[in-house]
Amino acid sequence: LSINQVNEMEYEDFISTFGNVVEHCSLFAAAIWSQRPFHGVKQLHKTFCDFIDTLPKLGKEGILRSHPDLAGRIAERGLLTTESTKEQLAAELNTLTPEEKANLTRLNEAYKTKFGFPFVICARDNKKAAILSGLEARLENETEKEVIQGVEEVKKIAFYRLLDILQHEEAEKLIGGW
Amino acid sequence: LSINQVNEMEYEDFISTFGNVVEHCSLFAAAIWSQRPFHGVKQLHKTFCDFIDTLPKLGKEGILRSHPDLAGRIAERGLLTTESTKEQLAAELNTLTPEEKANLTRLNEAYKTKFGFPFVICARDNKKAAILSGLEARLENETEKEVIQGVEEVKKIAFYRLLDILQHEEAEKLIGGW
Repeated sequence: LSINQVNEMEYEDFISTFGNVVEHCSLFAAAIWSQRPFHGVKQLHKTFCDFIDTLPKLGKEGILRSHPDLAGRIAERGLLTTESTKEQLAAELNTLTPEEKANLTRLNEAYKTKFGFPFVICARDNKKAAILSGLEARLENETEKEVIQGVEEVKKIAFYRLLDILQHEEAEKLIGGW
Repeated sequence: LSINQVNEMEYEDFISTFGNVVEHCSLFAAAIWSQRPFHGVKQLHKTFCDFIDTLPKLGKEGILRSHPDLAGRIAERGLLTTESTKEQLAAELNTLTPEEKANLTRLNEAYKTKFGFPFVICARDNKKAAILSGLEARLENETEKEVIQGVEEVKKIAFYRLLDILQHEEAEKLIGGW
């Protein structure tokens, strides 16, 4: 898909194409459609991020609560979105040992109890060991800081999802741009 | 479902129960979950509305763009959400004559072309004649006014959807409260 094709989309097509750039938050694609024309994947990403930044704290927490637990019940039941399935596989979360799995579940639960939203991390930037240690470290944060950190991870996830959707050629030029 | 049961829900259950109170905007249920305890359907509704009011204009337009056209292609293909199906039936949109249907389609298209989002009206408060005349009248408005009007309709739709979810007894006391 080229950025020109994106700019010519009716909003219905735009929403179905970009509706899960932020997990289960198709509202964001619906919101930013009127900001066309977009000049490329980076600027499209920035438009998503700018919109997210305008949301009040409740909305940002809501974004995090719209995400599934890593290697949690939804993953076990095969009910993850296509995008999340791919990301959790990239992080090799399918290769957790029973001990690692138990550890992750325990930490996830502790995190959700403390913050009221799940631990969100860009799984494509992290393998399972980094995820486990990251979760343990972030569990120590204050809520305020974790909302900010979680949302920053959401933005990274969104960038990779946009790269997957947009022209492969343009994607290759940009990858590693973090 | 009683309000006490609602207040005891984990956020995952809360989101799956209330995720479509605003069409395709499960983010809103995800956002307001932390505002428990709710004291009844009216106050739960107010919490949804207050959250909607905090959104920037783009977000409000996004809410409207998340709604299907009345008696449009999505309805024809049987792809409406359960809630929308019920509402469009309540408005007797399934009894449109070919002429009314053609008229509605033409007006819907004109509306979308002018405003960049679809015509949203609380179908349970209006039968087909009122919808057609309302659409014709609102087509004359300025965009700014239509965003506000559309969002007010979304809030009415949300109230009825909440009544459907919460205890029937409580619902009966409140119906006609508009």
